[in-house]
Amino acid sequence: MTAGSAATDITNATGPGATVPTGPTGLDDADLALIDAYWRAANYLSVGQIYLLDNPMLRRPLEPADIKPRLLGHWGTTPGLNLVYAHLNRLIRAHDVSAIFVTGPGHGGPGLVANTYLEGTYSEVYPHISQNVAGMRRLFRQFSFPGGIPSHVAPETPGSINEGGELGYSLVHAYGAAFDNPDLLVCCVVGDGEAETGALAAGWHSDKFLDPRHDGAVLPVLHLNGYKIANPTVLARIPERDLCSLLEGYGYRPLVVAGDDPAAVHRKLAAAMETAYDGIRAIQQAARSGRATAAGDGERPRWPMIVLRTPKGWTGPREVDGIRVEGTFRAHQVPLSEVRTNPAHLELLAEWMRSYRPEELFDADGRLRPELAALAPTGTRRMGANPHANGGLLLQGLDLPDFAAYGVDVPAPGATTDAPTRVLGTWLRDVIRDNPTTFRMFGPDETASNRLSAVFEATDRAWDAEVEPGDDHLGPDGRVMEVLSEHLCQGWLEGYLLTGRHGLFNCYEAFIHIVDSMVNQHAKWLKVCRQIPWRAPIASLNYLLSSHVWRQDHNGFSHQDPGFLDHVVNKKAEIVRIYLPPDTNTLLSVYDHCLRSRDYINVVVAGKNPAPNWLSMPDAIAHCTRGIGIWEWASNDHGEVPDVVLGCAGDVPTLETLAAVDLLRRHLPELKVRVVNVVDLMRLQPASEHPHGLPDREFDALFTTDRPVIFAFHGYPLLIHRLTYRRTNHDSFHVRGYKEEGTTTTPFDMVMLNDLDRFHLVIDVIDRVPGLSVRAAGLRQQMVDARLWARRYTRDNGEDQPEISDWTWPGGHPSREQESAR
Amino acid sequence: MTAGSAATDITNATGPGATVPTGPTGLDDADLALIDAYWRAANYLSVGQIYLLDNPMLRRPLEPADIKPRLLGHWGTTPGLNLVYAHLNRLIRAHDVSAIFVTGPGHGGPGLVANTYLEGTYSEVYPHISQNVAGMRRLFRQFSFPGGIPSHVAPETPGSINEGGELGYSLVHAYGAAFDNPDLLVCCVVGDGEAETGALAAGWHSDKFLDPRHDGAVLPVLHLNGYKIANPTVLARIPERDLCSLLEGYGYRPLVVAGDDPAAVHRKLAAAMETAYDGIRAIQQAARSGRATAAGDGERPRWPMIVLRTPKGWTGPREVDGIRVEGTFRAHQVPLSEVRTNPAHLELLAEWMRSYRPEELFDADGRLRPELAALAPTGTRRMGANPHANGGLLLQGLDLPDFAAYGVDVPAPGATTDAPTRVLGTWLRDVIRDNPTTFRMFGPDETASNRLSAVFEATDRAWDAEVEPGDDHLGPDGRVMEVLSEHLCQGWLEGYLLTGRHGLFNCYEAFIHIVDSMVNQHAKWLKVCRQIPWRAPIASLNYLLSSHVWRQDHNGFSHQDPGFLDHVVNKKAEIVRIYLPPDTNTLLSVYDHCLRSRDYINVVVAGKNPAPNWLSMPDAIAHCTRGIGIWEWASNDHGEVPDVVLGCAGDVPTLETLAAVDLLRRHLPELKVRVVNVVDLMRLQPASEHPHGLPDREFDALFTTDRPVIFAFHGYPLLIHRLTYRRTNHDSFHVRGYKEEGTTTTPFDMVMLNDLDRFHLVIDVIDRVPGLSVRAAGLRQQMVDARLWARRYTRDNGEDQPEISDWTWPGGHPSREQESAR
Repeated sequence: MTAGSAATDITNATGPGATVPTGPTGLDDADLALIDAYWRAANYLSVGQIYLLDNPMLRRPLEPADIKPRLLGHWGTTPGLNLVYAHLNRLIRAHDVSAIFVTGPGHGGPGLVANTYLEGTYSEVYPHISQNVAGMRRLFRQFSFPGGIPSHVAPETPGSINEGGELGYSLVHAYGAAFDNPDLLVCCVVGDGEAETGALAAGWHSDKFLDPRHDGAVLPVLHLNGYKIANPTVLARIPERDLCSLLEGYGYRPLVVAGDDPAAVHRKLAAAMETAYDGIRAIQQAARSGRATAAGDGERPRWPMIVLRTPKGWTGPREVDGIRVEGTFRAHQVPLSEVRTNPAHLELLAEWMRSYRPEELFDADGRLRPELAALAPTGTRRMGANPHANGGLLLQGLDLPDFAAYGVDVPAPGATTDAPTRVLGTWLRDVIRDNPTTFRMFGPDETASNRLSAVFEATDRAWDAEVEPGDDHLGPDGRVMEVLSEHLCQGWLEGYLLTGRHGLFNCYEAFIHIVDSMVNQHAKWLKVCRQIPWRAPIASLNYLLSSHVWRQDHNGFSHQDPGFLDHVVNKKAEIVRIYLPPDTNTLLSVYDHCLRSRDYINVVVAGKNPAPNWLSMPDAIAHCTRGIGIWEWASNDHGEVPDVVLGCAGDVPTLETLAAVDLLRRHLPELKVRVVNVVDLMRLQPASEHPHGLPDREFDALFTTDRPVIFAFHGYPLLIHRLTYRRTNHDSFHVRGYKEEGTTTTPFDMVMLNDLDRFHLVIDVIDRVPGLSVRAAGLRQQMVDARLWARRYTRDNGEDQPEISDWTWPGGHPSREQESAR
Repeated sequence: MTAGSAATDITNATGPGATVPTGPTGLDDADLALIDAYWRAANYLSVGQIYLLDNPMLRRPLEPADIKPRLLGHWGTTPGLNLVYAHLNRLIRAHDVSAIFVTGPGHGGPGLVANTYLEGTYSEVYPHISQNVAGMRRLFRQFSFPGGIPSHVAPETPGSINEGGELGYSLVHAYGAAFDNPDLLVCCVVGDGEAETGALAAGWHSDKFLDPRHDGAVLPVLHLNGYKIANPTVLARIPERDLCSLLEGYGYRPLVVAGDDPAAVHRKLAAAMETAYDGIRAIQQAARSGRATAAGDGERPRWPMIVLRTPKGWTGPREVDGIRVEGTFRAHQVPLSEVRTNPAHLELLAEWMRSYRPEELFDADGRLRPELAALAPTGTRRMGANPHANGGLLLQGLDLPDFAAYGVDVPAPGATTDAPTRVLGTWLRDVIRDNPTTFRMFGPDETASNRLSAVFEATDRAWDAEVEPGDDHLGPDGRVMEVLSEHLCQGWLEGYLLTGRHGLFNCYEAFIHIVDSMVNQHAKWLKVCRQIPWRAPIASLNYLLSSHVWRQDHNGFSHQDPGFLDHVVNKKAEIVRIYLPPDTNTLLSVYDHCLRSRDYINVVVAGKNPAPNWLSMPDAIAHCTRGIGIWEWASNDHGEVPDVVLGCAGDVPTLETLAAVDLLRRHLPELKVRVVNVVDLMRLQPASEHPHGLPDREFDALFTTDRPVIFAFHGYPLLIHRLTYRRTNHDSFHVRGYKEEGTTTTPFDMVMLNDLDRFHLVIDVIDRVPGLSVRAAGLRQQMVDARLWARRYTRDNGEDQPEISDWTWPGGHPSREQESAR
């Protein structure tokens, strides 16, 4: 430990046999023996889940037929999780704490299932897993068994908000849960394996974004059992001085508990828990009573945390076949792997299970003995039953101001210009104002860059570190969470949503891929929760991807990637929604819908640059409600079958499409053109594939069954093909979208580079409408020349020709929809 | 600084006016004044790039027309980068160091371009950017200008191996460059913005994987300029005591240099650089002379690093329009934004540029004055010209053992069984043995889990932290790099490849999405490099995705995701290759090809479980060479048009397809079935879309133009549709693949869950071959029953029916290809 460290009392007593005063816990040996018995019960149930098909109470000698044919659980991390859970139970009862348990280590499933079973929650949500021998048998059998539950903590596990599949997100989930929950204690066990991940390593810095006054507390327990799968872990193999220095550098006050003698560890851990809890309460009371100085003055609170160093697979077989197992990487999965075929292994398993003395733990019916059952908290104080871990139970709808009142005036299509996100920002400002404790915005320092700055009229950026003169809108209770880590933004938001609140993540489109895998896991979580009756719906995870691919002209190639849409489309259809509002009013309408929705992942892509407004608010609402539709004011097919359909999805593609229509009207007025705009991308899929999918009949009514379709798309063209390949007219679809061809450009140069520009769309029409290639050969050449000239102009002047960048729809005649809406 | 810290001499002299002894540098004021002049020259050129179209030497008063119409560069980080570069130049010359410069801060483009221009490298690779006034004008004009160069460090920047677009990878790239380059010093400037990212936060721990004996050194320079875009940065706003504690906890010895007076900072930084270099050399000499104890004994070297705290936008306008700019977030991008329209801003710009006294720096021709030019190193000691930063120049092909010699015996299809990755491991073992300093394997502790353990017969896992009894194959110079961070694995490998070496990344398929965005950036890097003549080809980035989606039965839903293939397909076709070898010999053949290839991203998915071998080595080589082909031994169409084509790609889909063929042969012997197996997925695309794309004629010859195709695919079915939608027979393609429907299963249950099992494929054939639905109604019902029974069996027994799991191809008659090969 670094000299001068804050950690003193408990923490240095880590040597074997070091005496620790009972001190603040007031626990005597009998109390600790009961906790030990509770721990043994959880360990017994964990081993049973991993190994047994039958004979759960070992009422008769174990036989090979009692053993699962495939041994697929993980023992290594489990005893440590069970230990922490048991001691937290004590803390909760002692102080009437509202606490949840976030399980970082992968494959901790058996431990958390065992504990929620012991406390009774499991049987309440799964009545067939009753608290008796028959229930215990089912508990064991279902674990990592076909049709059963996975070997890690999952949505099926009561009390969990953190999937144990992909590692690294426990700490950010824990902080997300703590925000705006001032009375909640989130205990987060961090595995030393997952501690090597990027998200976890960065996540420790979340303490700079936690407000002790209005937020709850996170109690990290870094569990050093020393090994990953086959390797030691980094944090377990650096000098303790370095480890404590690291954790202090992150801003914590580490309390080290180490040992392999259960009695000694129980005593030390109980004392450490008590010390940590006292420390947390002291920080909170100081902040809440006004005694502490405001945050930002360099006197940030130093939150306690626990470093728990115990053997991997503790209390399991010490040696197997002459090789050390307990305390090594060999305990990671199943310490005994041949139990069904090797009688010596079978005997070792029986010995191991009997070492927990099940007869002292469970009565004749297989029920936990009353003196042990009394150790668990009751009701919603049980961590498996705390409603914060089933956030939908606590969820309340946002108080949303009427978005229509924030709409912009659009006397005629293209007649006015606005920056969509800037206007959205004014609505979000009032969403924040009206929902001061249940809505937050997350982003990697792009709120201002994405022109959402109006929100700072209502709130600050959350910041609990030092503040200097000239800083812009920093405050401990800010509703805007900005950190240059998409992982933290995503993880915090997930934790916030999973505990029953609302939010959005605004990000550059290209860099949202940083959280692809987190999105996967959250989508899977939502999908599974839909099948679990006791999981209540939560608010959707909303993205606002501004600074999108088409406006990365000068940033160039590295900032151009619209592939997040493709990534999301692979997720379960009932979970994902993609919206591409073409202008300001449609963005407002879409976002209002997103903030009202539940259990979805909503991806909204919208520009931050000033652009023409196409739809009045009534038209925008109607269009967004349909999700897709013919823009009659831009079409001249007058309800007949058109010569060509121009489809568009996305703000820039819509602009270029309309500019192409303008060119076609001027040069080929007799051509019957229909414009179809898509806001809700999922409408393109067949109804059989997605709940929003348009029935084939309606799709054909929009896109015809045989006319050429020139489709200008925001993303990679193949996405439109994969969404529409089953449609009648798919072979006539010609899609223009983003191609991997970047360079430094101007905005129009950017669309030209991808052949998505107005001139090229006109060329596409000429090439694809029968007969036009001859009749309009002159116009075609004119378009080719216009492109060459436009590019040349940018190369000479560094900006677009004014006649291109200033173009807007010539119309002036309000649409029929607009007229009827008046 | 923490009490007892290693940092002493330079580091405490951070207060204003603190005197620092000239000490080890031996530099007098005149020397430092020259360095300052060099720095001013770089700053001048940086500002010029951001602002000027013309009048580069300010020979006449600045006019609005001299100014770029769109100001898109970033000044904030630039002076710091220029400062470090100038001081490194001095260090290189003083000690004849081979060094490269890794630029972490985003948008540091102008600085690195300026420095490589000053040292002459830029004009060597871009002769039109000559070292005179005309060249300087072009240098300025091209920056962030249409058709020019991006505003961040990019492949176009000489000396760079790290794209400045997406942030966070500088430190892992730096370590990757240092591995196996014992004489190389990699100076890595880490921005305090990017330091908040997960990859960077985890990357500091790379020091536990660096061997001072055989690897080079990384000198991190953490540049605290205090701000991101609109926010302060975390590391700049924690007490310096916490910061140093954090860095010491990571294992470094921080040397703090802080200030805003150039002369003082020059003196301190020169001394810090010298101290750091001495420290590095001492560590290396001790390790290499054998004086230091071996790594792993807890006496890991404590590498020096520099903390540089200087104002953001240092030397830029102090105030603009009465608002402080220098040293605040307002200096992030362009401190003066209205230069073209606001005469006061124009005047401020002129003042700012003149403040560098360009007439002292450049001669009348615009050439750097000789006394300054002499400060840069020469030849390949210049950081822009160091071949390590253009690794293809140093690349040597691997000495690859003949993979065919490692092949398994396959007397007839399905007659033998092997675990593909286990066999590949024996070949990789010898690749390592024969290429002891130019090939490494990277992975998140899954080498053993992925059954590649044979490699540990030739090498260890790289590990420089503590070692305990019972640890398995740890050593400071191990060729296997294992850390539970996919970001570190990917970043290290990229750095290793970019500096001219070879490697592979083995990973669980589902979790490779963690690096989606890094793959994007590397693909973009490779794509741009292909257009840069002076960038030499580098070894491909090779993935080995084992533990794939179809064998995550018990891990369940969270471990199932084959979408990385979709992600990769979006990248530029000339860069990406996807291989799905169906068995052991094909895996060997594919991997040999991958390790010989250049400038690709090769994704190989292969199973780790024992599975039937289908192809003898000669057949495997032939099949992999074609990439796609009819398996005649499994077909009975005898060269005629078949009734149905069964396509398959991936090991599990191939197995199920063959099992379905077996059922069809037994029950419908008259049905003409053709089996087409796909190894190289890109063969499915049209030749116009991908260099490997099969011409339509050949595709039609395989898949017919009108017969039903039942395609069993490893990944999401839509990927096959998007690859084939332009093919004649696409409407007849019926694809079975992974669906988002997870639960805990057995292997066969898993394929049943996705309707990819043998029984369902037979049902598909019956449903789609005209006439069969009536004729084979009985068989269809039999297949439906077989599925129900198979699922029931798994639920009762926890494993698959032996007749299913033990099934193999009944054949026994060697294929024609096999006969001809003998």
